[in-house]
Amino acid sequence: MASPRRLAYFRAMPEVILYIAHSVDGFIADRDGGIGFLKPFDGWDFGYDAFYGRVDALVMGRKTYQDCRTFPEWPYRGRPVVVMTKGPPLDGDGLAVFDDRTPQEILIDLEHAGRRRVWVVGGGGPVRAFLDAKLLKRIILFQIPVILGNGAPLWPPGRRKVDLKLRRATTHLNGVVETEYEIG
Amino acid sequence: MASPRRLAYFRAMPEVILYIAHSVDGFIADRDGGIGFLKPFDGWDFGYDAFYGRVDALVMGRKTYQDCRTFPEWPYRGRPVVVMTKGPPLDGDGLAVFDDRTPQEILIDLEHAGRRRVWVVGGGGPVRAFLDAKLLKRIILFQIPVILGNGAPLWPPGRRKVDLKLRRATTHLNGVVETEYEIG
Repeated sequence: MASPRRLAYFRAMPEVILYIAHSVDGFIADRDGGIGFLKPFDGWDFGYDAFYGRVDALVMGRKTYQDCRTFPEWPYRGRPVVVMTKGPPLDGDGLAVFDDRTPQEILIDLEHAGRRRVWVVGGGGPVRAFLDAKLLKRIILFQIPVILGNGAPLWPPGRRKVDLKLRRATTHLNGVVETEYEIG
Repeated sequence: MASPRRLAYFRAMPEVILYIAHSVDGFIADRDGGIGFLKPFDGWDFGYDAFYGRVDALVMGRKTYQDCRTFPEWPYRGRPVVVMTKGPPLDGDGLAVFDDRTPQEILIDLEHAGRRRVWVVGGGGPVRAFLDAKLLKRIILFQIPVILGNGAPLWPPGRRKVDLKLRRATTHLNGVVETEYEIG
């Protein structure tokens, strides 16, 4: 049994949330790394603003960061962004910090900085890392009505079976099915 | 433009339906080929009887057939069952026919036999084959609230992007999300 001190420690950890769109066959980008399959669903109100207003830090992989840098404007201004990468820092303009440490270490730092809700933006690498570290607590998925056939998987292979609790399922009129799950 | 004769031919082809349960990360069996993750949802009324009453032929892969043969009773008595396999026939007791031909050839035979609705039971091989042959018309998925990490994929890699139309999404109180898609 955990000691009260240990319990108190875990209760203070920020909630880590995955919030992501994927194809019916589980891809978050096509074989060329593109996200053109999301295009027909642009402009639809999926409740993103409300979600974004509730998170106070972002974590993403190197590839996701590079994709976001191709947008006309950096979409996450004002929010701390941690890029998980074993490689060297990609940019020095301060829009993100580059971190080669474990999910646990990153999360402890975010907790010390007073962050309460962390959005794991993608891709599969950080998702798997936070899931395996048992730090992922909430999963919000947007299933796009398309089969891509190949591409970047949302769920790279892992060893652990994880039971989920369905909290909510929402059918959007454009054919996107949104589900929200909690872990343990 | 297709000739009227050609249209009439296609209109006569049986409707091919995928109806299957999968984990959130897209597996239909765990790494040992087991389906224990479905066990907690046994006995729930997912509308299977109504669905089964509407199909009049079944197609499955070799592995799925072998799994079904381990059940105390053959679950598909009275329905023609085609097992797609490049290997030799597995059994001679007439519960299934073993067929090494293409989805198109199999479907034409079923049509000649007066079959109107064909259930692709699984696994990933036959699903991919019918999808690639543009013969899969309806997809009914039961998303089980679990992440398996590894196993037999519902969607083996393919080359073709396929747009789907969401027809229905149903949230079952045990946490299973059912979606029904049509293919153009």
